[in-house]
Amino acid sequence: MTPPNDSSPASVYRAAGVDLGASDETMARIKTAVTATYTPNVLAGLGAFGGLFDASALKALNAPVLVASTDGVGTKTKVAAALARYDTIGHDLVNHCVNDLLVQGARPLFFLDYVASGRLEPPLTAALITGVAEGCRAHGIPLLGGETAELPGVYVEGEFDLVGTLVGMVDRAKLVTGEKIRAGDLVLGLASGGLQTNGFSLARHVLAGSYDESLGDTTVGDALLAPHRSFLDALTPLLNAGLVRGMAHITGGGLPGNLPRSLPDGLGAVVTPTWDVPEIFTLIQRRGNVDRDEMFSVFNMGVGFVFVVSPENLEMVHKLAPEAFGVGEIIKDEGTQIL
Amino acid sequence: MTPPNDSSPASVYRAAGVDLGASDETMARIKTAVTATYTPNVLAGLGAFGGLFDASALKALNAPVLVASTDGVGTKTKVAAALARYDTIGHDLVNHCVNDLLVQGARPLFFLDYVASGRLEPPLTAALITGVAEGCRAHGIPLLGGETAELPGVYVEGEFDLVGTLVGMVDRAKLVTGEKIRAGDLVLGLASGGLQTNGFSLARHVLAGSYDESLGDTTVGDALLAPHRSFLDALTPLLNAGLVRGMAHITGGGLPGNLPRSLPDGLGAVVTPTWDVPEIFTLIQRRGNVDRDEMFSVFNMGVGFVFVVSPENLEMVHKLAPEAFGVGEIIKDEGTQIL
Repeated sequence: MTPPNDSSPASVYRAAGVDLGASDETMARIKTAVTATYTPNVLAGLGAFGGLFDASALKALNAPVLVASTDGVGTKTKVAAALARYDTIGHDLVNHCVNDLLVQGARPLFFLDYVASGRLEPPLTAALITGVAEGCRAHGIPLLGGETAELPGVYVEGEFDLVGTLVGMVDRAKLVTGEKIRAGDLVLGLASGGLQTNGFSLARHVLAGSYDESLGDTTVGDALLAPHRSFLDALTPLLNAGLVRGMAHITGGGLPGNLPRSLPDGLGAVVTPTWDVPEIFTLIQRRGNVDRDEMFSVFNMGVGFVFVVSPENLEMVHKLAPEAFGVGEIIKDEGTQIL
Repeated sequence: MTPPNDSSPASVYRAAGVDLGASDETMARIKTAVTATYTPNVLAGLGAFGGLFDASALKALNAPVLVASTDGVGTKTKVAAALARYDTIGHDLVNHCVNDLLVQGARPLFFLDYVASGRLEPPLTAALITGVAEGCRAHGIPLLGGETAELPGVYVEGEFDLVGTLVGMVDRAKLVTGEKIRAGDLVLGLASGGLQTNGFSLARHVLAGSYDESLGDTTVGDALLAPHRSFLDALTPLLNAGLVRGMAHITGGGLPGNLPRSLPDGLGAVVTPTWDVPEIFTLIQRRGNVDRDEMFSVFNMGVGFVFVVSPENLEMVHKLAPEAFGVGEIIKDEGTQIL
């Protein structure tokens, strides 16, 4: 009697020293991608049950704080599955987590992932993990460990889930908490370039069957799969210069759902949408007959990340982050008004 | 038009400061369970996008190493779903991860979880997260963050997945790597009390429909759901005394699949099964007509955790860990022979 597949050691790749079975081409490909993320901080070969990360850097901080976030990519997986394009979704996952830590002023240290499906097709699994690994490499952090699991009967056939955890660090005095934000401060934004990883249930509902249609110089499907941007590099010079009073990662809930999370009690924001809303959003709005308020509360509408600065620093901010554009202003009235 | 559910902010609970909506009874229950895990290390209320953990303790280590592991509980979720018992599976998840870090000598610092389903029934979600929180509390660590996601069409109706990530620490000199293990060393074991979280695909295949049958003073279903034990407390005195040369967490793959992971090249083990194999395993073996080798390579067969000690320390080991029993011996021949 042969046991059905389970999440056995053979299906588990752990960064630190597990033999992935080089005879298996897929496992070798995964191993290559994962080990390519290794930095000198990874203490490889020392153990087999959990990834080891040299955290000496934390000793140099006055008051080291670890920041951690677990996220999935939602039903963007279903668009990836429909288009059989599995190489970008790992970038989405890493970048989403990097941004979630960034809003508190933290820098990423290492990442772990989890891939599960009813049956893990090796090429799919390799593409997913390779994408995660590339996302890690782009940030100079190791994919320290992870697990792959086959859960027959739990996942719908052909579907999968991809989950990641990012651990980062920040010196306590450098935490960005939003407490210095004042009425009259300016809200600046960075372009998302697409849905990032939110609003896919609605987007799929409206656009199912239209993935092959052309949209500008791309297709609807490709526009939906446009990678979730990481905003770490864009924000770093501003953070180093101490110019950022608060930040928000615009995920599910859009600007009204996320901007208030970065503001002190009693303050809110007026948003003036003067930026270019990417075509994919106007297509969803038109096709789905979705009203404007709902569009703004489900989608980022082209703004992937916002940060709050004092008006007197605006010139310096534009020098250090030339791509940032005006989104709105802080007011003494809670909530987010979209003009 | 109402958007279908997505992994929106409303469905995301993050430890550090998010208002979970106290008007919602379930969310309030989750919040109570999660905040009950908080230690003074949790910097709550400072940020909303990721959990913050005061890591000053790492500064006291000579060479701090962070250890991290991501795991799921495999298809044990399906047994929990069949029995509608969702309160123990969170303990399984935490304990599994704690043991995975323990084998390297690391102590847990904090935990993050991920719960996903096609549709998250609030009582189910609360029971799962409360279980995770209780598992964290038993180890004195915070459930620092997590995410709940509704992914319609990805999960089979009524099914769910539960994934966790544990981050721990160890001083580099205290890492247990197995490098000191010599032929003639003894392998001792700690009782699992059940399947822990592995072998459920085979177990379910054999025992589906028998969950209500009595088995000793319990039922087949309850025996299958018996929580994954944490071995941290049992091992701590031995680790503090420097008596442990190597450890293995007996997960999927059983003794032959996990014991070798803790041994240096060129060494193996002879296992003499003289311990009491729990009835649930003999039932599976008999009903499924599973051969003995396969039983040992799929299940832990009653041994949840093993550790290797020098024979001259045996008396001291038994004093510090009275529940440990003999499992086998290290030999100069790779692999694991089950006598």
